[in-house]
Amino acid sequence: MASEGRWNTLQTNRQQRLARVAQILGSDLQGRIFPQQRIKDVLHATLEVGDRVCIEGNNQKQADFLAKALTQLDPQRIHGLHMLQSVLALPEHLDVFEIGIANKLDFSFSGPQAGRLAKLVSAGKLNIGAIHTYLELYARYFVDLTPRVALVAAQAADRHGNLYTGPNTEDTPPIVEATAFKSGIVIAQVNEVVDVLPRIDIPADWVNFVVQAPTPHYIEPLFTRDPALISEIQILMAMMAIKGIYAEYEVKRLNHGIGFDTAAIELLLPTYAASLGLKGKIASHWALNPHPALIPAIEAGFVTSVHSFGSELGMEDYIRARSDVFFVGADGSMRSNRAMSQAAGHYACDMFIGSTLQIDLQGNSSTATLGRIAGFGGAPNMGADARGRRHASPAWLKAGREARDGQYAMPRGQKLVVQMVETFREHMQPAFVETLDAWQLAQQAKMELPPVMIYGEDVSHILTEEGIANLLLCRSDEEREQAIRGVAGYTPVGLGRDLRMVENLRDRGIIKRPEDLGIDKRLATRDLLAAKNMKDLVRASEGLYQPPKRFRNW
Amino acid sequence: MASEGRWNTLQTNRQQRLARVAQILGSDLQGRIFPQQRIKDVLHATLEVGDRVCIEGNNQKQADFLAKALTQLDPQRIHGLHMLQSVLALPEHLDVFEIGIANKLDFSFSGPQAGRLAKLVSAGKLNIGAIHTYLELYARYFVDLTPRVALVAAQAADRHGNLYTGPNTEDTPPIVEATAFKSGIVIAQVNEVVDVLPRIDIPADWVNFVVQAPTPHYIEPLFTRDPALISEIQILMAMMAIKGIYAEYEVKRLNHGIGFDTAAIELLLPTYAASLGLKGKIASHWALNPHPALIPAIEAGFVTSVHSFGSELGMEDYIRARSDVFFVGADGSMRSNRAMSQAAGHYACDMFIGSTLQIDLQGNSSTATLGRIAGFGGAPNMGADARGRRHASPAWLKAGREARDGQYAMPRGQKLVVQMVETFREHMQPAFVETLDAWQLAQQAKMELPPVMIYGEDVSHILTEEGIANLLLCRSDEEREQAIRGVAGYTPVGLGRDLRMVENLRDRGIIKRPEDLGIDKRLATRDLLAAKNMKDLVRASEGLYQPPKRFRNW
Repeated sequence: MASEGRWNTLQTNRQQRLARVAQILGSDLQGRIFPQQRIKDVLHATLEVGDRVCIEGNNQKQADFLAKALTQLDPQRIHGLHMLQSVLALPEHLDVFEIGIANKLDFSFSGPQAGRLAKLVSAGKLNIGAIHTYLELYARYFVDLTPRVALVAAQAADRHGNLYTGPNTEDTPPIVEATAFKSGIVIAQVNEVVDVLPRIDIPADWVNFVVQAPTPHYIEPLFTRDPALISEIQILMAMMAIKGIYAEYEVKRLNHGIGFDTAAIELLLPTYAASLGLKGKIASHWALNPHPALIPAIEAGFVTSVHSFGSELGMEDYIRARSDVFFVGADGSMRSNRAMSQAAGHYACDMFIGSTLQIDLQGNSSTATLGRIAGFGGAPNMGADARGRRHASPAWLKAGREARDGQYAMPRGQKLVVQMVETFREHMQPAFVETLDAWQLAQQAKMELPPVMIYGEDVSHILTEEGIANLLLCRSDEEREQAIRGVAGYTPVGLGRDLRMVENLRDRGIIKRPEDLGIDKRLATRDLLAAKNMKDLVRASEGLYQPPKRFRNW
Repeated sequence: MASEGRWNTLQTNRQQRLARVAQILGSDLQGRIFPQQRIKDVLHATLEVGDRVCIEGNNQKQADFLAKALTQLDPQRIHGLHMLQSVLALPEHLDVFEIGIANKLDFSFSGPQAGRLAKLVSAGKLNIGAIHTYLELYARYFVDLTPRVALVAAQAADRHGNLYTGPNTEDTPPIVEATAFKSGIVIAQVNEVVDVLPRIDIPADWVNFVVQAPTPHYIEPLFTRDPALISEIQILMAMMAIKGIYAEYEVKRLNHGIGFDTAAIELLLPTYAASLGLKGKIASHWALNPHPALIPAIEAGFVTSVHSFGSELGMEDYIRARSDVFFVGADGSMRSNRAMSQAAGHYACDMFIGSTLQIDLQGNSSTATLGRIAGFGGAPNMGADARGRRHASPAWLKAGREARDGQYAMPRGQKLVVQMVETFREHMQPAFVETLDAWQLAQQAKMELPPVMIYGEDVSHILTEEGIANLLLCRSDEEREQAIRGVAGYTPVGLGRDLRMVENLRDRGIIKRPEDLGIDKRLATRDLLAAKNMKDLVRASEGLYQPPKRFRNW
């Protein structure tokens, strides 16, 4: 045929790469498995200049051995790599740019590396393609950012190359699928090679090479919060959230992010929420990592189902013993899947509740601060109205009615998107500002748009220690601004409120103070917490939860 | 431990079900495989009254043997089933309700069964939970609609129970994952049991039982359109789409649905679009089933990448020979995945273009007509602004600017959502109406909201043979209404236009006629089609495309 070969260049190129590896490794390659000391040879033989390389840097699980190996390559041979990764978590993730092996980056979240990332961008050593929300980045893997090479991490492999990702499956499935099925190459680091896997999470057919790493891949216990550190202000805010939002809208399906604010809510479910008769009526179905703070609510029978983005260290035995609640394999260990859990957070949850660093007068919020390019993670996907959603629920219908009555001829539901912040954050920085730092950061880093985490148009409620502002009920930009000022406390934004207008908003139920909700502030004490410290959580779990060492003080 | 067993009831119950099957089948059960004549016994032993049962009814691939077997069960023993499925395609999918085996349904699309579905609802034999978009339904499988039993279809199994879903993977992965990892039971019908699979798509660990069906599972060639049936009006509209929207916004990443309107666009890429110098500038990256009408554009080098929801009959060899473009496994056959392709359509595409049956004066559109409950399929997910998206592209930024300039302080991008309709559809029914039938249908079927496919707020452009209305640029409800009337031709809605206002909108570029776009209507002939009939498509494919019999007239 005339076109023979012209349309299979990716496959041919893959074969060439595989052949190079086979030749260089010789008898060191046993099926798909090679010894760790040959990793540099394998990467040199696999990679080509300018490759799009996806390295599994997740929220928690890190392909750290492969990340380190990348930094040890010869930049004369391998350079111009375009890195794709969910999370920039390790120094090595930026070292590859410093060294000149990579020069372009598409990612979601940079967390602790945000400051150094900004510096590398300024220095012209790193060119950011875009910052994404997680599911958006995976989506692009199947369209215009398909990886040529994927470097992933699994718990174990068998001798055929099948992978067991276990509780921390996280991002592995879409990364491997997009790469393997577009004639790319998949290299997996594993903690161990075994004869029989507890279960197969990724079939060997999708994997080209497996290497046992010298140490188990790094996992960060990101979702553990010690109840001992929860303040009474957070407890008051949690009471308002439960009574003023969860109960008010009958929110059954929801997501909680990281933080003490939402940990406080979790710990008040079996106490305060139960006392209001809300068991079975709210917070039963979750898209959520296995937060230890949720243990008392699970034990109290509040929770029907939890699907997780990733796992949490120390929760393994507890999850195994609570398989009615969590998603577990036939082997008893959890199965997480960030892509599907993000889809769940987007489409199957009625509420997203999260925190932020700055909120402006339109309700736009951002975690971007000067000199730090922090990224978005999962928040934009869950903290946005899912306009493709078509199934109804009481929460979604009520939110839609409040937002649209008298404004649109066609009724529609809406997601609840709650921003929960204390008016002042650490070092007395006001959470409410006239102008987001994001504007200046966008200019500095030459971004197309200011990096807004949650847009004001998508926010339904802002909750502070001063009260709840229901933005759904606002009917003008001015009302919206005063509703925000009305819960902004003693920040300059709060002090700039129009007192009469704020009182009018309160009369109309757009602003609600604790007393308007029938909440006695004096009851907002740590006595309400279902667990007051880590030991209480362990006890509540019947000894099944085993906190990482740094959370143990006994 | 005090709670021993209390929290593992689903696992215990699964064990009981598996034991019942093992006992009844005896030596007929070989590993996971049992003979087809025992299917009723297996289902009677597996199912329990009131189970949530997901049956794989996809857009194309159907677990038809299992669907039929369900209808043969004893309704005295098995009843009250809650059916979950993407598509109601086969009569058997409704027979189970008629017979009294099932009584509740959550689904996405009902296509040819829409009329009978409406009747069963009226008769009180079928209670609809909700109608979803596809990804939304999968999302709920991980939250509050997790299947207890899943009945799926695969191309082949090996003797261990590993599954090969091949080109038609479609919905199988999320269905199996949600069920298998929440202690449910997965039963797969396969076309054949083989010693070695071409590749493994679903690991045996995730599957409980496999049965070889008496005939290969049904697949509908849903995305094949004979170019011979494309009209010159459709060609004119395709020219307007290409010049007025694709080129105008530099749309590179997109989705096309089913239909002659978009098939015409596909067939004009290598001719009309190429003559405008647009190769490499538009329509390069797709979330799309392997439409035969795309062959000439692929051959012309227009297309870089295609990720598919499902496959299309007859395209197998062509796909294998064009692996640079399609997602294929190491075995050379395609891998589709509706969940990930829907995520791609939502988050990685700049444009959705689709058709509809009715559009109202606010731009809301619906395929619901009286007496038919048709459902949504994938359209709402792709035909909605993806408000969680954060990466920029020229198309998205321009659409956002047009929609927001002078209206919002915070800039934001926006998806292009194009409705492409002739002003009159079959039987001279006007596509533009004052009031959607959806309102009356909602009342009849007691729905919470009228079943709107695409909301007017999300539509960016309406394209008819009369011109393009750019709704992004409208600044009031009145402008929007007149922009719609202005392209509604001789329908009553079109005749009701305010002539002066429409001319004003045209002066401002909000309405564009073909002549405003520099399109000579006389050139809109079938000569522009890169393939004029099925045989041309086969020829363009170098003989690799093998159309199903019903599309061959030679």
